[in-house]
Amino acid sequence: MTTTLQDCRALDAQDPLAPLRAHFTLPPGVIYLDGNSLGVLPKATAARVADVVAREWGADLIQSWNTASWFDLPQRLGDQLAPLIGARPGEVMCTDTTSINLFKVLSAALNIARADSPARRRVVSERSNFPTDLYIAEGLCQERGLDLLLVEPGEIAASLTPDVAVLMLTHVNYRTGAMHDMAALTAAAQARGILCIWDLCHSAGAVPVDLHGANADFAVGCGYKYLNGGPGAPAFVWVHPRHADRPDAKFLQPLSGWWGHAAPFAFTPGYQPAPGITRYLCGTQPIISLSALQCGLDVFTAAEALGGMAALRTKSLALTDLFIALVEERCAGHGLGLATPRDHAQRGSQVCLTRAEYAYAIVQALIARRVVGDFRKGDGAYPDILRFGFTPLYLGFEDVWNAVEHLRQVLDSGEWQRPEFNQRNAVT
Amino acid sequence: MTTTLQDCRALDAQDPLAPLRAHFTLPPGVIYLDGNSLGVLPKATAARVADVVAREWGADLIQSWNTASWFDLPQRLGDQLAPLIGARPGEVMCTDTTSINLFKVLSAALNIARADSPARRRVVSERSNFPTDLYIAEGLCQERGLDLLLVEPGEIAASLTPDVAVLMLTHVNYRTGAMHDMAALTAAAQARGILCIWDLCHSAGAVPVDLHGANADFAVGCGYKYLNGGPGAPAFVWVHPRHADRPDAKFLQPLSGWWGHAAPFAFTPGYQPAPGITRYLCGTQPIISLSALQCGLDVFTAAEALGGMAALRTKSLALTDLFIALVEERCAGHGLGLATPRDHAQRGSQVCLTRAEYAYAIVQALIARRVVGDFRKGDGAYPDILRFGFTPLYLGFEDVWNAVEHLRQVLDSGEWQRPEFNQRNAVT
Repeated sequence: MTTTLQDCRALDAQDPLAPLRAHFTLPPGVIYLDGNSLGVLPKATAARVADVVAREWGADLIQSWNTASWFDLPQRLGDQLAPLIGARPGEVMCTDTTSINLFKVLSAALNIARADSPARRRVVSERSNFPTDLYIAEGLCQERGLDLLLVEPGEIAASLTPDVAVLMLTHVNYRTGAMHDMAALTAAAQARGILCIWDLCHSAGAVPVDLHGANADFAVGCGYKYLNGGPGAPAFVWVHPRHADRPDAKFLQPLSGWWGHAAPFAFTPGYQPAPGITRYLCGTQPIISLSALQCGLDVFTAAEALGGMAALRTKSLALTDLFIALVEERCAGHGLGLATPRDHAQRGSQVCLTRAEYAYAIVQALIARRVVGDFRKGDGAYPDILRFGFTPLYLGFEDVWNAVEHLRQVLDSGEWQRPEFNQRNAVT
Repeated sequence: MTTTLQDCRALDAQDPLAPLRAHFTLPPGVIYLDGNSLGVLPKATAARVADVVAREWGADLIQSWNTASWFDLPQRLGDQLAPLIGARPGEVMCTDTTSINLFKVLSAALNIARADSPARRRVVSERSNFPTDLYIAEGLCQERGLDLLLVEPGEIAASLTPDVAVLMLTHVNYRTGAMHDMAALTAAAQARGILCIWDLCHSAGAVPVDLHGANADFAVGCGYKYLNGGPGAPAFVWVHPRHADRPDAKFLQPLSGWWGHAAPFAFTPGYQPAPGITRYLCGTQPIISLSALQCGLDVFTAAEALGGMAALRTKSLALTDLFIALVEERCAGHGLGLATPRDHAQRGSQVCLTRAEYAYAIVQALIARRVVGDFRKGDGAYPDILRFGFTPLYLGFEDVWNAVEHLRQVLDSGEWQRPEFNQRNAVT
């Protein structure tokens, strides 16, 4: 009943999504299990970026604001991204960073919630939420004299008390790969008059997301992980139209820059927000990096013909199921634990292993063998994590076999004990 | 006494900065007088961007956070920019957008000023300041229940009353090219206990700026105008060390993202700001666009050997003096006015002309002749503007002659009356 390398090759041969790998440039010999940190380079990106630099900027200069539609780029990319997250055209902007976009939507959510119910003085989030989300929330709460309550996943439902204004969660946890039930938690919160913000950094392009189906209020996410937009690619922001089109508050989102103005080229001294999601733009965007993001989104557009996010999800679960099974079969006795839920409904597109000691060194030994995952340090409450992301756009089943085989060899040989794998860098 | 084409050619032949033009890719036949809107493409940029895409991202992937020092890029570029604005190493970050950075420093300035003096409830700025600065200030003032007072340049001194917390000005006006006396206004404000924020969008790389010499408090600016960083290039932020290193306020600047954390890779749930200017970082930056900005800054580093900003300023004033003189000699009788001060001490690196009617059409007719300036619409209080930026890095004196000759021909022939030059686009 054990899976063999031949079985994995057979799975690859049958994989309807296998042709998508040809859209990417993967370094030779690398098994890249870190697409949840930085996605790989689409083959189209280099030529697209070169064209933006040489033609749109170099030759056409300011005319490109019109002729290359630079001004509309955040919305055009947002429209292309929208189907991946269950949003509609005209509802998403690709702009700024996740942190900045979270500041916008948390500000807006607090402004809306507290205008209706000033007694709501609390934001609830998860203690293991991605830290930058918590830093932004901590700052906004302190500035407004509000309370930020951080809880464990099992405590969320009980924390939705009448004094809560906003529930702010990341859909798929960056440390564990655990996925929340967006629709159920949104419904539970809204039944108590609480607005919901979803961070989709580890969801967009990784798992099917249906923001309208879940009736979410706000969402933000990242362009450089599963969307393969390039290092530090601009992020995205979505606001449900029932909030985005509220005419009542001029500074509902407080980063009121000129790109969010109703008439940005009138150069009037007074701010007048543009309709809908456009008011969530602020300053002039980095056109070269935005253009690179488009190439990442183009691969998802190409994937539509092969079954789109539903097919990608099926393959993602098959890859992570296989990885878990092979690790448990072939690396038994080495003290590895599983931090990621086995239940498909609770799993994102990554598998996180735990180990009481030397998790960092094991990850480094794997990287030396060109099996690239990453390490996330624990603290008193959480264990150290060996983190492996599985991107069905460019990973196959044989890759999973080979990754586990390298892990087995690293553990069996004890090569992770070498001194060079035990020296921490500043950035990992 | 009139200047001839031969005189202009002689000036070019003697110009010690003439070799800098070889650092840029200029479209053939174009006289580009719009470097104050979007700078031109440095020759090094295409190869640099291609290398970031193919090698740093494509081949090295997440390792490049270490091996290509992506994480330090905002500070390394800031250090390279610092001498252009009279700042010191470690004081400047290239990051986010001008609007976002202004939100950070205006928030911080208000937090500092009002902690000491809660009765200071006013921000003063110029009514013809760049609109996005005013939009950000309007939003922050409304949120905090403060007052934004907009005045004309001649009214600034009288507006510095005891209830003012912050004076927020753009050093060189985008509409007129008029330059404030930064040191004098800063001293006048500080003598009244008022903090000063300077927007250097039309100054950095255009005129010598000495932030420490002027004892300024905060500054922001743009990477895509005179710094030639590419469309929407990341902006910059500077804070005087006396404010940047204040240990007392955790959220002095409220965009408290992970790149501004004291230990960004510890992934702790609580925010702890990094020392100094580093806390003015927020989210992950667009590495490709940031890398392009570096090529723009490299040209200024190369210009150091030829006299640096002082030599660039001398040439800039000679170019703008020549343009004014030639327009007045050769385009007389066509109703053109001069919006830019004749006094060198009050002039940036652009010349703005006014005309009661058809300013837009004249600019379009010039663009059709490949003389690229731009048009800025007036309102009741300000006239329409024909705007011409002069970038001494790549413009010569013969370019000025030819630009004026085209303007003369457009006016003498009346070709600006053609219908195609009178249809306004959405974006200009």
